[in-house]
Amino acid sequence: MKRKITLKQIARELDVSISTVSKALRNSAEISDDTKQKVQAFAKLYNYRPNNIALSLKNRRTNTIGIIIPEIVHHFFSKVISGVELVANKRGYNVIIGLSNESFSKEVINMEMLANGSIDGFILSMSKETLKLQDYHHFNETMTQGMPIVMFDRVVSEVKCDKVIVDDFNGAKKAVKKLIENGCKSIALITTKDYVSVGKLRTQGYLEALEEHQMPPKAELILKIDESLDYEAHLEALEKEIEQLFQSNPKLDGVFAVNEIYALLAMKVARKLGLDVPNDVQVIGFTDGVLSKHATPSLTTVSQHAQQMGEKAAELLIDKLESEFNSADEVFQTVVITTDLVERESTK
Amino acid sequence: MKRKITLKQIARELDVSISTVSKALRNSAEISDDTKQKVQAFAKLYNYRPNNIALSLKNRRTNTIGIIIPEIVHHFFSKVISGVELVANKRGYNVIIGLSNESFSKEVINMEMLANGSIDGFILSMSKETLKLQDYHHFNETMTQGMPIVMFDRVVSEVKCDKVIVDDFNGAKKAVKKLIENGCKSIALITTKDYVSVGKLRTQGYLEALEEHQMPPKAELILKIDESLDYEAHLEALEKEIEQLFQSNPKLDGVFAVNEIYALLAMKVARKLGLDVPNDVQVIGFTDGVLSKHATPSLTTVSQHAQQMGEKAAELLIDKLESEFNSADEVFQTVVITTDLVERESTK
Repeated sequence: MKRKITLKQIARELDVSISTVSKALRNSAEISDDTKQKVQAFAKLYNYRPNNIALSLKNRRTNTIGIIIPEIVHHFFSKVISGVELVANKRGYNVIIGLSNESFSKEVINMEMLANGSIDGFILSMSKETLKLQDYHHFNETMTQGMPIVMFDRVVSEVKCDKVIVDDFNGAKKAVKKLIENGCKSIALITTKDYVSVGKLRTQGYLEALEEHQMPPKAELILKIDESLDYEAHLEALEKEIEQLFQSNPKLDGVFAVNEIYALLAMKVARKLGLDVPNDVQVIGFTDGVLSKHATPSLTTVSQHAQQMGEKAAELLIDKLESEFNSADEVFQTVVITTDLVERESTK
Repeated sequence: MKRKITLKQIARELDVSISTVSKALRNSAEISDDTKQKVQAFAKLYNYRPNNIALSLKNRRTNTIGIIIPEIVHHFFSKVISGVELVANKRGYNVIIGLSNESFSKEVINMEMLANGSIDGFILSMSKETLKLQDYHHFNETMTQGMPIVMFDRVVSEVKCDKVIVDDFNGAKKAVKKLIENGCKSIALITTKDYVSVGKLRTQGYLEALEEHQMPPKAELILKIDESLDYEAHLEALEKEIEQLFQSNPKLDGVFAVNEIYALLAMKVARKLGLDVPNDVQVIGFTDGVLSKHATPSLTTVSQHAQQMGEKAAELLIDKLESEFNSADEVFQTVVITTDLVERESTK
């Protein structure tokens, strides 16, 4: 029902050059207010969308931030959102959220939908599929069209934007060092496949801690789990894999797990095999979740400060939205949130 | 910068009656396609918004569902969202989410923002403040303007729309009956203040179960907690209140809590006071959360089937969006999702 219109058609209809239309849509100072208003109204009337992602015109500010996250049934992401909300509300911004469900195409669709006039900028964490495909064109296009992005947690160097990350490498290293200092001689790692950047960095932290203590890493102590979309649906299969890890390594006396569920399952398996936590096996997880706090024994974890990540991401985005610089001068920041080791009952 | 325009001005500019403009904007069959296109394009060009909430014009379908929930750091709400996503994606719809943070004004702002052309209809659960203020005008206005709403969990009879609710009353009654049948003689209730409808219904279920077993309810066994926005920030204060409940009722041998956190805190307090769960005190919660499953002892709960609620809500909304009936014939449904008692280790 709606006509689709191109830059060329707008130019012809209004008797101006394509370059003028393009600049007018980008609100360039080179173009007169009169022409800008004419072009923008015309483009709006015919729903012009450049590459299907609309421009964030400076005079169409929505004061709304769009968040795209991979999943919602996950305490980490909901804490990040709380942090974004806190800062956004303080500074007069609203927040809307879209979910990629770890799917590349859903991420693209959600970004298109929100970029189409609903929001001023994005805070996002990439889907696993995007990381696997290494296709980042939608992020770069969105930014080219004048809509800033701040990425958190899962980031890649190929996309130039502001980023907020956790110090995954040092967090993991700290945890494994703690296990070594507590007397563990045979420390297992339960991690994800390498395409998940945080899993990779945490694995490197584990390896470096071992190396610094002249403990050669053993392949049979490293369990790399092919993560599915839904932990809960695969708990039993996961538990079996972890049980095999324990059974094929009878001397195992320490476990570092890159998330909370893996760590809790390791404690469950230990209990099942008659091992006491922390006297026979010490366990450390990586998370900000509530399960760790309420587990019995409560779980020692590397705390990610998810809420602080969200707050920082919102600050970076709003600062950019409200700054007067044009994008040519743009300098991007990567803010690293330091992790803390929260010691509870699962370590000595 | 943008001009605000009224129905009257559109009518004058296009030389038609106000009633024609209004009908054209509602896409009425009485008006010719030509006039409708002219009016709609003009209204769009000048960003006409009736009562600040845009119409959902049939030819402007976005295939997007807006969800408004009170908070996100809550497993129940994230499971509902998963359910909505599942059905929405299957039927070709996208989902975006706004948070009210339990605030009336944030609820209104979020609805306005999303109703402004971003979505086709709402799935929502009211904020506590809205329930307290009993101000439902924004729901009714949104529906008057042709945008359907499906409410879930927290609903009120004053708003006529499709609803999906949990059988709170019978769920609670079932739980308390179980405690009675298991031999509990002195059963405490940990609930919320009455303005939260689900807390109220669960309280009624508790009272009726006692009555049916000729056990007169005792005021000192009922703890009504004034819920704050953030459980986690008030865990210690909560724990103290529950400890007082135990200490002033030394014969207490059963606890029914209207949510998971209250139930887990009751187990924690029991342990602290040297009481064994389930041998000295039996505890039942009300939730779909992950904490219950992973707690030690694991918690017996009334399961709410949150995901199923979300699925049902999405079905109701999409059916309405795709139906050919006009709103005058509208019949609203209330779907009741039956609860199940999931027995785990915290009861005998």
